Amino acid sequence: MEAFNELNLLEVDLPVAEQDDILLKVSHCALCRTDAKMFRQGQRDLVLPRILGHEVFGFNEQTGERFVIWPGEACGVCEECLKGHENLCSQMRIMGFHRDGGFAEYLSVSKSSVIPVPENLPGHLACLAEPLASTLNALEQARVEKNERILIYGGGPVGLLMSLAAQSLGATAFVVEKNPPKLRKSEKFRSSLAIEGSPECRLKDFDVVVNAAPSLSIFHEGMSKLRSGGCFCLFSGFTGEGTFPVSILNEIHYRQLRLAGAYGSTRRHMEKAVLLLNLFQESVSYLVEEVIELDQIPLALEAILSGDTLKFVAKI
Amino acid sequence: MEAFNELNLLEVDLPVAEQDDILLKVSHCALCRTDAKMFRQGQRDLVLPRILGHEVFGFNEQTGERFVIWPGEACGVCEECLKGHENLCSQMRIMGFHRDGGFAEYLSVSKSSVIPVPENLPGHLACLAEPLASTLNALEQARVEKNERILIYGGGPVGLLMSLAAQSLGATAFVVEKNPPKLRKSEKFRSSLAIEGSPECRLKDFDVVVNAAPSLSIFHEGMSKLRSGGCFCLFSGFTGEGTFPVSILNEIHYRQLRLAGAYGSTRRHMEKAVLLLNLFQESVSYLVEEVIELDQIPLALEAILSGDTLKFVAKI
Repeated sequence: MEAFNELNLLEVDLPVAEQDDILLKVSHCALCRTDAKMFRQGQRDLVLPRILGHEVFGFNEQTGERFVIWPGEACGVCEECLKGHENLCSQMRIMGFHRDGGFAEYLSVSKSSVIPVPENLPGHLACLAEPLASTLNALEQARVEKNERILIYGGGPVGLLMSLAAQSLGATAFVVEKNPPKLRKSEKFRSSLAIEGSPECRLKDFDVVVNAAPSLSIFHEGMSKLRSGGCFCLFSGFTGEGTFPVSILNEIHYRQLRLAGAYGSTRRHMEKAVLLLNLFQESVSYLVEEVIELDQIPLALEAILSGDTLKFVAKI
Repeated sequence: MEAFNELNLLEVDLPVAEQDDILLKVSHCALCRTDAKMFRQGQRDLVLPRILGHEVFGFNEQTGERFVIWPGEACGVCEECLKGHENLCSQMRIMGFHRDGGFAEYLSVSKSSVIPVPENLPGHLACLAEPLASTLNALEQARVEKNERILIYGGGPVGLLMSLAAQSLGATAFVVEKNPPKLRKSEKFRSSLAIEGSPECRLKDFDVVVNAAPSLSIFHEGMSKLRSGGCFCLFSGFTGEGTFPVSILNEIHYRQLRLAGAYGSTRRHMEKAVLLLNLFQESVSYLVEEVIELDQIPLALEAILSGDTLKFVAKI
């Protein structure tokens, strides 16, 4: 990608694996809403020209070892890195944003960023490890516990992966998706995991509410759905220019609520995500709308922007 | 108190200790800013006419047993009560707010609300257990850990008790108090505990920031003082009508910050507060500006509203 809305297939030199790097043959790379937004209008961390793609499964052609890739590249020596919060490293350079990503045949990545994938997990599912890992981080920041009830706004691929992650922790997830055709698309996934979904939610007193969609109205509605002591997890950024009144802060004080921001994931979350994908292969396969070719990516990104789709995975 | 700004000494009947209650002779009751605000303009939980006072030390005249009082009265059977979060009980009736408090010679309280006080802790210090407990709850909500740096806005009695509580957890507290005479008043307290204080703070990258004062400017400044992954603890409500831009929520998302509300305390926090007061008797004694008589309470409440004082304790 050299400019917005211009994604071209090009012959490029094979990346050079520097010291501590490993050259991977990319097998599958999933597309996400952030790719689509970058394609259309850029993103604060995007540096052009760039090969996009940050949800990558690949393998070492020499040894056959299979890997997904933690897309960060952190300094490794700052306080956050040393604490295992490498997603908060201020020197972070993200694959597919600051440096080239997975919509390419080969990729050179740091050995410290590859996460092994077991033989029996297919590549088109393994590449969902990155978004699943980010939902595991979110649930950790929100400190979701067993038997808690969690309300997820947004029934796209990430909201649905979040619901799987929540159920795997022993919590009960409810998904709100305002777009009825999209809600129907996730029926098979949700029924395989006994996850409720509906276009609106009349229940309340949730332990945790998460926004897996960017509309600010979710924040106002979601806060009213929390029990005292509950947590709103800010998983997605909000779009637009709105404001909110100080009374929200006072409500947080008096009802002892929490707001928990969540951003990206760490290697530890990626490892856990691979385990979960392996365990829930059948359910996860229902999230893949289509496996596409490299040259179909621009059309698929347009489709993602329509907001009606589940997950596209590019076979490289 | 029968109306705002009218606090009168009256002869009243001895309270009747009902089943599961205990009749206490009140020995000391401390005054706080909330008492002063209730005196001046009321408060959302205040029901008139009322005997104010919720920071109470007293004893059982028959057995000599010494107690401080957890000022809540919770239902005991709701989900929050059963989880040990009785401060969040929606049926809560608070002593000195919904029912009569400690500016009186006798008080009938539930046996489940009294916390034993050791012989060697004087009553005029023991009655600080309630405010200290509320700061312990706040630090727990903010999940303050050993070696963390915590910035406390407000160097009044509660901010200072918060700094003691933070140091007792192995954290390092910095107190910002914009009023220089008030800051000087706390010098003896702070130097006994090696707590830094100043009228403004140039440091940044704090793990936790707390507002022990109600000015909204604290929120904006405090958020900029947090490291990524840090927590702003909403300990005091904010006054005024301001609004916030959505960008604050997005900053919480991208920097993985937390907002943690804190309200009141539980019996468990009161027990811990008594232990700390006993351990830090000398330091805590520097917080007591004056021990006053019952009929001096209105004047003392006026002085508290000026914002220049440390702690007044009424000897009953």
